[in-house]
Amino acid sequence: MQVFFVNQQPQFMPCIDIHTHIIPENMPRWSQRFGYEGFIHLEHHAPCRARMMRGKEFFREIESNCWDPEQRIRECAAHQVTMQVLSTIPVMFSYWARPADALELSRFLNDHLAEVVQRYPRHFLGLATVPLQDVGLAVKELERCRRELSLCGVQIGTNVNQLNLSEPQFHEFFAAAQDLDACIFIHPWDMMGGEHLQKYWLPWLVGMPAETARAICSLIFGGVLERFPRLRLAFAHGGGAFPATFGRIAHGFEERPDLVAVDNERHPAEYLGRFWFDSLTHDEAMLHYLIRFAGEDRVCLGSDYPFPLGERQPGKLIREAALTDAVRKKLLWSNAWHWLQGRAPAENRQQGATGQLEA
Amino acid sequence: MQVFFVNQQPQFMPCIDIHTHIIPENMPRWSQRFGYEGFIHLEHHAPCRARMMRGKEFFREIESNCWDPEQRIRECAAHQVTMQVLSTIPVMFSYWARPADALELSRFLNDHLAEVVQRYPRHFLGLATVPLQDVGLAVKELERCRRELSLCGVQIGTNVNQLNLSEPQFHEFFAAAQDLDACIFIHPWDMMGGEHLQKYWLPWLVGMPAETARAICSLIFGGVLERFPRLRLAFAHGGGAFPATFGRIAHGFEERPDLVAVDNERHPAEYLGRFWFDSLTHDEAMLHYLIRFAGEDRVCLGSDYPFPLGERQPGKLIREAALTDAVRKKLLWSNAWHWLQGRAPAENRQQGATGQLEA
Repeated sequence: MQVFFVNQQPQFMPCIDIHTHIIPENMPRWSQRFGYEGFIHLEHHAPCRARMMRGKEFFREIESNCWDPEQRIRECAAHQVTMQVLSTIPVMFSYWARPADALELSRFLNDHLAEVVQRYPRHFLGLATVPLQDVGLAVKELERCRRELSLCGVQIGTNVNQLNLSEPQFHEFFAAAQDLDACIFIHPWDMMGGEHLQKYWLPWLVGMPAETARAICSLIFGGVLERFPRLRLAFAHGGGAFPATFGRIAHGFEERPDLVAVDNERHPAEYLGRFWFDSLTHDEAMLHYLIRFAGEDRVCLGSDYPFPLGERQPGKLIREAALTDAVRKKLLWSNAWHWLQGRAPAENRQQGATGQLEA
Repeated sequence: MQVFFVNQQPQFMPCIDIHTHIIPENMPRWSQRFGYEGFIHLEHHAPCRARMMRGKEFFREIESNCWDPEQRIRECAAHQVTMQVLSTIPVMFSYWARPADALELSRFLNDHLAEVVQRYPRHFLGLATVPLQDVGLAVKELERCRRELSLCGVQIGTNVNQLNLSEPQFHEFFAAAQDLDACIFIHPWDMMGGEHLQKYWLPWLVGMPAETARAICSLIFGGVLERFPRLRLAFAHGGGAFPATFGRIAHGFEERPDLVAVDNERHPAEYLGRFWFDSLTHDEAMLHYLIRFAGEDRVCLGSDYPFPLGERQPGKLIREAALTDAVRKKLLWSNAWHWLQGRAPAENRQQGATGQLEA
């Protein structure tokens, strides 16, 4: 795959948004097909609008920018976003379903996503979804997505049916992602405390940031990066609660290694600079904190487009923050490239007004 | 109650630690007394050491500074801490127990705590514990603790048997705390996701910060401060995940008022400056962030003494941080006074080298 774009504005700065979600406009009725409830379907109840439904239960209202690539391209132009990295909506992970059914659903979503990417290669890159409830199937689907569909990587949840990502059963998946040179985007889902946090949108406002801290801690303390040092992991929502509670996490590691350092003796601070984070903090002071915490080479624009809890105008926070142009370009473009491609862009590409992305 | 201290050093700066835990050296065997398991007892298995046990299950090893006030006073002198605010260890809340039994346990703990405070009034202030599984009993015990025992306030959990603090059944408790002029310290306990987070001390490192965010969000969105505007609430661990994820929380409120603003239309930013936070961030950059976030009048030294996840040398972070002496004094002394007493200390007391605390 080769992707080109051309400078069209005097102050053009290329921009990749690594955190955007998409869903096919039309899907089989999975529950009917598989014979049990729990799957999402769309009710196209009005022009350009649909309801995501789980059986008769309303999940979320979405608009056509959730499925229509051409509308997305128009909105990207308005937002000065050059490219979007597409991933499914986490409710579609379906880790709870029978493995063969989740595989079929994942293949459908991945085929759709790859087709959008192939149709508009200047505008989109893609992350697969895989049925992690069966690691063998997940690995096969990831292989297919990398080798046949040319997707850049994969999006996974912060837990899999409440199993932490440190569990040994996931080693095979991480090994495959490393071997396939697939970047991994880790997005909170199936939030802890869910049943007791229903009011005030607390699963999204409290549970999701906690889930991301859970995933990062599990990956560090489980020694996953020691086993698979070439993994490229990026985390949604600026790393959730992790960056700001890192002092506590590190202190816990130092004071109670008998509890924390049981699978990996390396200090968690040694992993800073190894992870990528999206920029979705909704707060400039926290963005600066995140840049100091993770390094200016490890924060990438991520907007959660097209959802309202995301950044309404993707890139606005980074464009308006008190950053040097060099750092701004890293956050808008070259850090994402590095995460997606496994190497920092060549200097002339960083500096130049045209870019070329090879995948 | 009148408490005095006298300047004994040229650069003496008085210091209150609002977050310290204590337990009686000797307690009844609650499980035998009440006829069912689940309560904590101590096994004094070596000089100056004990095991906190839940039945035959080991909970935590503690040392005599957890129960011996004179050892605490010696350690305070070494740490330049003038006074400690004592509270029970959250595992003693026992919100899960039969209400009458939890009341008896609370009374025992509160009597012990008050006795320590009365014996060493220059060194200690105290927060009660109350059986919040029965709000009527909790209110009665809080009245007794304020009127008869002269404790300053009360420590409560971030949830009560997974009920959020926004639940209307707790209004009666908050009304009583306001009427009794009792400050409230909110400490995480019974952490969300517990059963799935057992490894790597994750309930302490991830669950606790999330619990504190849950409690603050519940209190804001539930409109508790609208009903009880004179409440003085302080939160442990620098507010956990709340300050750093506030951008997301506020954005969620703005974008989905249909989900978030259902009980209170006031923007969460209007509550900044209304809450106190302890300083236990383990990180100077995060301490500065917290001070900017909450206001320099709303951060108080809290160390979690005598536990290892706390600050090993209480006050060290504040003493060594790049702060003006005026702000440092606020964090070490006058902000705590304000939270405990309901008014900022008089200027002469702030400036002077002797202080007087009236409760």
